[in-house]
Amino acid sequence: MEQKNKLLIIPLGGLGEIGKNMTVFQYGDDIVILDVGLAFPEDDLLGIDLVIPDMTYLIDNRDKVRAVVLTHGHEDHIGALSYLLKEINVPVYGTRLALGLVEGRLKENRLTGYNLMPVKPGDEITIGEFQIGFIQGSHSIPDACGLYFTTPVGTVVHTGDFKIDQTPVDGKLIDIHKFAELGNKGVLVLMSDSTNAERPGYTGSEREVTLALDEEFKQAKGRIVMATFASNVSRIQQAVYTACKYGRKIVVLGRSMVNVVNVATDLGYLEMPEGTLIEPEEMKRFRDDQILILTTGSQGEPMAGLSRMATNTHRSVSISAGDTILIAATPIPGNETSVSKIIDSLFRLGAHVVYEKISGIHVSGHASQEELKLMLNLVRPKFFIPVHGEYRMLKKHGKIAEDLGIAHENVFMGNNGDVFEFTKDTGRVAGKVKAGRVFVDGLGVGDVGNIVIRDRQQLSKEGIIVVVVTLDKQSGALLSGPDLVSRGFVYVRDSSALMNEAQVRVRAALERCESNNISDWSSIKLQVREVLGKYLFEKTRRRPMIIPIIMEV
Amino acid sequence: MEQKNKLLIIPLGGLGEIGKNMTVFQYGDDIVILDVGLAFPEDDLLGIDLVIPDMTYLIDNRDKVRAVVLTHGHEDHIGALSYLLKEINVPVYGTRLALGLVEGRLKENRLTGYNLMPVKPGDEITIGEFQIGFIQGSHSIPDACGLYFTTPVGTVVHTGDFKIDQTPVDGKLIDIHKFAELGNKGVLVLMSDSTNAERPGYTGSEREVTLALDEEFKQAKGRIVMATFASNVSRIQQAVYTACKYGRKIVVLGRSMVNVVNVATDLGYLEMPEGTLIEPEEMKRFRDDQILILTTGSQGEPMAGLSRMATNTHRSVSISAGDTILIAATPIPGNETSVSKIIDSLFRLGAHVVYEKISGIHVSGHASQEELKLMLNLVRPKFFIPVHGEYRMLKKHGKIAEDLGIAHENVFMGNNGDVFEFTKDTGRVAGKVKAGRVFVDGLGVGDVGNIVIRDRQQLSKEGIIVVVVTLDKQSGALLSGPDLVSRGFVYVRDSSALMNEAQVRVRAALERCESNNISDWSSIKLQVREVLGKYLFEKTRRRPMIIPIIMEV
Repeated sequence: MEQKNKLLIIPLGGLGEIGKNMTVFQYGDDIVILDVGLAFPEDDLLGIDLVIPDMTYLIDNRDKVRAVVLTHGHEDHIGALSYLLKEINVPVYGTRLALGLVEGRLKENRLTGYNLMPVKPGDEITIGEFQIGFIQGSHSIPDACGLYFTTPVGTVVHTGDFKIDQTPVDGKLIDIHKFAELGNKGVLVLMSDSTNAERPGYTGSEREVTLALDEEFKQAKGRIVMATFASNVSRIQQAVYTACKYGRKIVVLGRSMVNVVNVATDLGYLEMPEGTLIEPEEMKRFRDDQILILTTGSQGEPMAGLSRMATNTHRSVSISAGDTILIAATPIPGNETSVSKIIDSLFRLGAHVVYEKISGIHVSGHASQEELKLMLNLVRPKFFIPVHGEYRMLKKHGKIAEDLGIAHENVFMGNNGDVFEFTKDTGRVAGKVKAGRVFVDGLGVGDVGNIVIRDRQQLSKEGIIVVVVTLDKQSGALLSGPDLVSRGFVYVRDSSALMNEAQVRVRAALERCESNNISDWSSIKLQVREVLGKYLFEKTRRRPMIIPIIMEV
Repeated sequence: MEQKNKLLIIPLGGLGEIGKNMTVFQYGDDIVILDVGLAFPEDDLLGIDLVIPDMTYLIDNRDKVRAVVLTHGHEDHIGALSYLLKEINVPVYGTRLALGLVEGRLKENRLTGYNLMPVKPGDEITIGEFQIGFIQGSHSIPDACGLYFTTPVGTVVHTGDFKIDQTPVDGKLIDIHKFAELGNKGVLVLMSDSTNAERPGYTGSEREVTLALDEEFKQAKGRIVMATFASNVSRIQQAVYTACKYGRKIVVLGRSMVNVVNVATDLGYLEMPEGTLIEPEEMKRFRDDQILILTTGSQGEPMAGLSRMATNTHRSVSISAGDTILIAATPIPGNETSVSKIIDSLFRLGAHVVYEKISGIHVSGHASQEELKLMLNLVRPKFFIPVHGEYRMLKKHGKIAEDLGIAHENVFMGNNGDVFEFTKDTGRVAGKVKAGRVFVDGLGVGDVGNIVIRDRQQLSKEGIIVVVVTLDKQSGALLSGPDLVSRGFVYVRDSSALMNEAQVRVRAALERCESNNISDWSSIKLQVREVLGKYLFEKTRRRPMIIPIIMEV
């Protein structure tokens, strides 16, 4: 899909979904990739660990790929990078914190020989025909950037994940001057974060959280446990400051939390006063009101710190009355139930639990409607592509843009894989490339597809019955069986009458096959499936998966 | 558990959960049951259709059970009644609408010979030593009642599901005078709805919804489709009034919606002006802007009307640009994701979708904090049991009661199965009876237990591998196999190398068994499981369920 004097923008992830953000920018023979994120599987993707974007288009065009540029270090923007770099080793540009977090990931995946190129907000780099600039943003992790891509046909501004926080924790204001300057010069396309497009007004400042946290620390008489996203460095920094103020030592628990705290501290993004951090073993040397435990599991992940504490299976912490638990995160859609269960369990253990619905200890990292309007008015692009959101959020964001005067036909509701083609004056959807979800399950990348998932869904709801028979190779006579083995269907001890009768019916079906000289296996299997399926449905209104297996001797 | 001069209150469902509300009131030899509801299964209860309370205690005490009394006709209060009446046939008292909805359910379950006793708000009935009164409440269904139980040791007030709506759709105000009168006379125990105990302020009135609906009808140029709970008769009434105002005919789709509309209309609870209702086939005789479609599926249930429309698989309605979809319900926790998906799909079809987050077309039917305080102050009980809520909601409600002056030791945080024992002056938790969840799966009630669910969970995440071998009965020699069949594990066509090698390893294991004269089946099966499990985990980091089956000829 090479086109002279045309800029192609191809989102491979992040449109119509929250997660696995990845966008291709292509001009002539140069491809630059913005972000390579992962998504966490939805509930119906049974057994899947991670979802990454389908990268076929890039692999087919690997000789054109020049670089990856990163907005910031969250998993939904960097988490699939190791899968890309395994295939196409190109330089990766990002701020030091983002690259620090990437490096940890690459090491885990035992990737070497990669080429990480640190940049600072304000920097500009040249890659082929692209002039790419990093703009200081503000989000829940330091040095989150917006980017601009200046090309021969015009400039594209991508906000990255952002909100407009007038009082950020690290004191680094979003560079609204730069957005304004770009808007003044003229912007061809704006791509902007739609996560909170449904939310009116302004997103709260990180400053408000500081005050709410302070209040909780002031009142807490025992230990404080705070759970948040490991990557929410802002929230961690606030907890560190507040702990110091109230004379509490800090214990960090959970692999990803330890990793982020180490990387962010080493790189100077997290200020951790000398002597604040202690090891879990040292806790007993301090009073309960001298302890802050930072841990993971704010999304209800069953193996993470908070879950283990709630179920009383944590190695080093057991929760009791007097403990204060701060859950400083909003449940991602789909996680509400598991988070609620954890809150209930912690209450049952006697803890005082502070969670978002009734507290101010968390604010979103994404811009609400008034901030989105400000961004649109600052940049005043000719074309607008709402990104980073489920379809209804993109739709709402598009509507906001139209209300501000962007022409309806210049607002693009995109899908992953759409090829947006721009010239100096025109923009259109020019085609579609392969895009979609690749499932990571254990070590397998892409070996679990829709058929396997469908099987898992049936197994999960109805269970399975295996029917085994041994037939004589010559005569086709039944030598042994039918044996019926079920899992996930009924509790066999209580249902022996049902299973015995099922066996009788299958045997009768096999005998009918034999006396009718039906000997090809697929017909026999079909018979078994039909007879057994019908009987079980009649008796139970369930349709377990039925697997007939024929052995021959 | 018979005790003279003592009142026992035993919640069998609804505490620490939203759903399956059921409470036992026992004095001497008389048991009265308040509500017999069902719960919808949580995500991890794979394949389960419904959850009902464990009724063992009642079955063990069946000779004492005198009656069931109902607060209102919602599924979480009446949905398990047919399972109880099958075991213990006692009279059921409730308002006509509640009983009308019960009757439909009983007919579906082909139960006959039941004894439904209609009452009106304001009525009092005597059952054994209980004097039981029905108090007009206000909720999202007409004639929702609070109840009081006067006994020789004192009076218990149960609010039922309620909010304090000053402008209800049917004009029937909650009888605050009665609650005040009871409070004046002295109340021993209050049991009150905790659903919205986490929500500050007041719950919106149904009146506000009328205004928001009117606005949507005024603007809609094409068809309007409104999805809500079938049992939300208030919301349906509002839609009917508004449709009439704007000259729209009404089509009712979905079995449960048709059922509720018929019952409520027949009993005079739903005012449906002559000629308003039309059949689906008649729709084509009218213009799009003369149509309102009422349907189910507001919770994202995959088989319900709205889901089918969103996936373009509905029999009589296909959604297109110009249609307005009103989703007049709040997603129950756990359903957020499926509801969001439906909204996205409807937007993609070009429809204008109005849903709670960005509209006023729905309000909760449950009291918020200020209403809960008013109820507590009106009734001013000696003892307080927060009910109808997850643990954190009960906890919050309990805290509110304490803030209003109820002694900490008189506020009971209960669990299902707790036996609360009251005398004239004292209250305490006096023991525990069997309580819990019984799973309904298809026709089976209780035949799927935790083992089956655990199997389904493993199957759903990792899939299954069946290994079949045929052995010689005399020598134990391998005659056929091992054959490996997998489902939900890997896509076999792409993984033949893996499966072939797995087969080789199992064969080697079997040969080792043979040469070591290991012939008992459990040892052979253990060997197969170990060798195969280890190999597959090494290669894939997954642990499919492994079922070895040995046939003998």
